Amino acid sequence: MQEIRILPLLGIPEINDGDDIALQIVQAVRKASLVIDPGDVVVVAHKIVSKAEGRVKALSEVKPSSRAQRWANDLGKDPRLVELILRESRRIIRMERGVLISETHQGQICANAGIDLSNTQEEHAVLLPQDPDESARKIREKLKSIVRADVAVIIADSFGRPWRVGQINVAIGVSGMNPLTDHRGTMDSSHRQLRASILASADELAAAAELVMGKTQNIPVALVRGFGYEAKEGTGKALLRPPEEDLFR
Amino acid sequence: MQEIRILPLLGIPEINDGDDIALQIVQAVRKASLVIDPGDVVVVAHKIVSKAEGRVKALSEVKPSSRAQRWANDLGKDPRLVELILRESRRIIRMERGVLISETHQGQICANAGIDLSNTQEEHAVLLPQDPDESARKIREKLKSIVRADVAVIIADSFGRPWRVGQINVAIGVSGMNPLTDHRGTMDSSHRQLRASILASADELAAAAELVMGKTQNIPVALVRGFGYEAKEGTGKALLRPPEEDLFR
Repeated sequence: MQEIRILPLLGIPEINDGDDIALQIVQAVRKASLVIDPGDVVVVAHKIVSKAEGRVKALSEVKPSSRAQRWANDLGKDPRLVELILRESRRIIRMERGVLISETHQGQICANAGIDLSNTQEEHAVLLPQDPDESARKIREKLKSIVRADVAVIIADSFGRPWRVGQINVAIGVSGMNPLTDHRGTMDSSHRQLRASILASADELAAAAELVMGKTQNIPVALVRGFGYEAKEGTGKALLRPPEEDLFR
Repeated sequence: MQEIRILPLLGIPEINDGDDIALQIVQAVRKASLVIDPGDVVVVAHKIVSKAEGRVKALSEVKPSSRAQRWANDLGKDPRLVELILRESRRIIRMERGVLISETHQGQICANAGIDLSNTQEEHAVLLPQDPDESARKIREKLKSIVRADVAVIIADSFGRPWRVGQINVAIGVSGMNPLTDHRGTMDSSHRQLRASILASADELAAAAELVMGKTQNIPVALVRGFGYEAKEGTGKALLRPPEEDLFR
């Protein structure tokens, strides 16, 4: 069993609407005297993907509906932010104590529909990528066309969780790997037990990458090397539990 | 920003009641021609800790109560397992569709009170360690006394989550580090944004370690090197959200 390395990628510049993320990654990799190896998992913070795709709204241009204004008042939030959360959501899961948790149109269940507020120039809201699996697929194909290596790409965001304090990074978009590792029916060789679990490997890879991304120096891309994923098209959607199998919505 | 390495630790033998986990780790490290460095995070699968602490019950010796028998019938589970789940729980969170989610006496919210079934000889149930923070503290102190290095120790288990498919590893016991990394109020240097998050770093370290632990060859210990945690006594309890701040129990 080999070790896994998590390599932070320094030197990604500020990303703007229309920028080519794959090209920026390749340039940063070269500047850092690294190479992208076949089998690497390239974990990309959703925020730069959203910016490259123009998924940024100036709050000054958002007109809140009367419902958004009423809810904003109850929640103690900016009505323009609540308006955006409602537009980005297909269903409200919980709304109390200043917290608004919804299911987004992408199927993610998270606080504030995954919207981050940014103070870059004026107040902007960074929305989730419209189709994170498609974003991951495009980055993977472009990377392959430039560096000739088959890799997996994960688009990651930090979400809070029920019952536990603190956020952890999860995979909202996946391309190039099976996001799940199925151990059901395999024998645990050293301890002679039948294992019964399916592991969300793409979520664990996103969490691992965050360990080098989340420090004061923000690093929006990390390479995870040595995992040995099952190569396939794969999706982040496969990590979303169908409502009928879920006890908590 | 340096890279992080996740080193699987091969050669941990079958663990039995009374075994010294720290000593087994040091012996496996030496056999693998590795060293434990100061600042390493030693992630230990809870199962070997439970076994070393005698937290294993033969199902044949468990007498189910009439309540356990009734619930087992509703859930389609073994009444002896349900009896153990009830004994290990302070509160039931959800019980439907064959799933029994409870809050354990340790404060963990998970399926089946974190009990794993083992087929080692006859049917055994492996319970969670009674006090995983204390287990982590003891392993850390023993490691320090042998190798003279200050490390952090995480006891990890794989839990399912609401809304998402698959289990991920989380930290149920922590010693030697702050399990949370607080970014509130810090500036994101490359993208000039005020960050607003607290990250559950100990959970992300547990998830990262699982990437080398969870393969067909079961590896119950991994070293995570290069994270740069905030050294302090720390606890896994700090990762448990107080009920009054929780919207999902």
